[in-house]
Amino acid sequence: MKKKKIAILGSTGSIGTQALMVISEHPKLFEVEVLTANNNSALLIDQAKKFNPNAVVINNEGEYDFVRKQLSDFNIKVYAGKSSLIDIVSMESIDTVLTALVGYSGLEPTINAIIHGKNIALANKETLVVAGELISGLCEKHNVSIYPVDSEHSAIFQCLTGESFNPIEKIFLTASGGPFRGLTKTDLLSVTKEQALKHPNWEMGSKITIDSASLMNKGLEVIEAKWLFDLTPEQIEVVVHPQSIIHSGVQFKDGSVIAQLGIPDMKIPIQYALAYPYRVKNSFPRFSFFDYPNLTFEKADLNTFQNLNLAYVALKRGGNIPCVLNAANEVAVESYLNDKIGFLNMSDLIANCMEKITFVKNPTIDDYIKTNNETRVLAKKLI
Amino acid sequence: MKKKKIAILGSTGSIGTQALMVISEHPKLFEVEVLTANNNSALLIDQAKKFNPNAVVINNEGEYDFVRKQLSDFNIKVYAGKSSLIDIVSMESIDTVLTALVGYSGLEPTINAIIHGKNIALANKETLVVAGELISGLCEKHNVSIYPVDSEHSAIFQCLTGESFNPIEKIFLTASGGPFRGLTKTDLLSVTKEQALKHPNWEMGSKITIDSASLMNKGLEVIEAKWLFDLTPEQIEVVVHPQSIIHSGVQFKDGSVIAQLGIPDMKIPIQYALAYPYRVKNSFPRFSFFDYPNLTFEKADLNTFQNLNLAYVALKRGGNIPCVLNAANEVAVESYLNDKIGFLNMSDLIANCMEKITFVKNPTIDDYIKTNNETRVLAKKLI
Repeated sequence: MKKKKIAILGSTGSIGTQALMVISEHPKLFEVEVLTANNNSALLIDQAKKFNPNAVVINNEGEYDFVRKQLSDFNIKVYAGKSSLIDIVSMESIDTVLTALVGYSGLEPTINAIIHGKNIALANKETLVVAGELISGLCEKHNVSIYPVDSEHSAIFQCLTGESFNPIEKIFLTASGGPFRGLTKTDLLSVTKEQALKHPNWEMGSKITIDSASLMNKGLEVIEAKWLFDLTPEQIEVVVHPQSIIHSGVQFKDGSVIAQLGIPDMKIPIQYALAYPYRVKNSFPRFSFFDYPNLTFEKADLNTFQNLNLAYVALKRGGNIPCVLNAANEVAVESYLNDKIGFLNMSDLIANCMEKITFVKNPTIDDYIKTNNETRVLAKKLI
Repeated sequence: MKKKKIAILGSTGSIGTQALMVISEHPKLFEVEVLTANNNSALLIDQAKKFNPNAVVINNEGEYDFVRKQLSDFNIKVYAGKSSLIDIVSMESIDTVLTALVGYSGLEPTINAIIHGKNIALANKETLVVAGELISGLCEKHNVSIYPVDSEHSAIFQCLTGESFNPIEKIFLTASGGPFRGLTKTDLLSVTKEQALKHPNWEMGSKITIDSASLMNKGLEVIEAKWLFDLTPEQIEVVVHPQSIIHSGVQFKDGSVIAQLGIPDMKIPIQYALAYPYRVKNSFPRFSFFDYPNLTFEKADLNTFQNLNLAYVALKRGGNIPCVLNAANEVAVESYLNDKIGFLNMSDLIANCMEKITFVKNPTIDDYIKTNNETRVLAKKLI
């Protein structure tokens, strides 16, 4: 394959740092063209010195002088601020943009990357949750492909290789169940934030780890899957699978199920998204059935974990409601992490916002921006 | 897809009858052109009346008059005997030949079908075990595809869809472990034939059921996989998986594993082999993870089940040794079913034949026929 120039939006986060490990593993295949970080200027500087990108962006403008000074001996352009983050993806030399930003902040840079014809390695599921229909239309218009990075969606994408003409009956979207699997609502009244931040299988950022504990992450993934694979809500079955070995699967109309498996290691789906359609040999650890002699499966407890229900409701209602769900959830998680609300309050807050925000059936990008802002204001007021 | 005319060799056996169920399910896609049976003339007649093929063949010539008389009011050609069975596959109108004969008897009809350019839906694994190299060469020469019907090989074939340019690291060939999984050699001294004939997951003919109990079936499948997918013995890992839900999988060089799953129902791989590359909607029962909440995996016990070892040895030695393994095993299973030898004697007999028959490095078809005959004579003498 031809060497690809990669822009990593969010290079200092969990996905970003693992993407750089993948790129280090294959120096002949990938080259870092752009790195961006939100606040972590120290790590961004280290990464820039090591990978020598064309440009870096630090979102927090207060860090701009520090980053520029530290990189003054290098031939690396330094930018700062939100508008730079959106603009940078239009750079002619970029082949693929890996969107590993957290939450809603990924939306505008992703839209700009698509408009400029860059293929997207999508780790920022919120972009599709908020504006799936709009993004899908733009991808079609600009002939851009989205390669999913989420392990579940990468699994489904891999299962569909060579099967594009064979219709899907349904997908099995697996879920670890998070650290609170098996608990009741009453139990959840007394869980601590530290417990919520301890995911049994995956090491991830704090936002997605809380989303995993509340099953909102799976809810967002249901919506993401709808847009990536053109499914109805009824075609998406969540299967709780605590070992996180089967990353997801597809049942075709002949009744056959294809699934993708492996150890929980994000480097594999990241590499697949960057190298698609090639499966490049690497030195990452290998899966063995003998290391995982018991794989178990159970239904999700929708009574205890209301967030997954809310996501299905939002998906079925459509319009701007998934955007409301996402914005309310971002405020809820932030408030939970700041000890302002309890674990179960998160669902109440989201449900409340979904009822109160005005429904818009066919939102434009401006409608999404407005809905996002209004929901955040409302959610903060409700807390 | 264009309607396909199918010849079923061995239509009265387990695979043959299930293939007819598949054809009944899709009358617009498939048409029965030829049916053949070994001895079961009554069922062959019933099938012929229902499916109205162009021709039928009864292998047992003593049944010829009976079959001809019963079908005299139908426009169906009736033939008998081994040479008719070999000749019939050359019929111009046949698109695909499903080879569901038992054991070595499938070899010559399969070769003739390939020479006449018919695609093969292969349920007769012994053909590839005996003469894999020769068959592979013929397929290439005559531009013929082999679509595997064995659930494991169908699984691997399905996992490779769209991945032809991505090299395989290894395959996981799953095995139920049969009815004697977990037993010791001492335990096996006192098992009964009735126990051996009771497979935990699959309803199959008696030969393959005994092979499953002794793990010889998995050994034959290892050799079959080598020829179907161009693998080394080291690339084929047998994984005992008692629930028979994961039918097999492929680990690619990027570390990702693709697997095919489903309930144990041979109609799915049969349909896939006949309709490839299309996955046609059907009414067969569906898999659900919630019906199989525990999937388990363990290593095969090669000390107790020597046959699997012997198959790896035969594969590594190559030449005519897999043919010896197969012929000796066919005699061993027949003798076991006739209460002439015990369960553990089967392995001893096969090992003995593998030592004593003269090694031929690059066998021709005549060498295979000779090896097969000599091994049978020797095996019977040794009993």
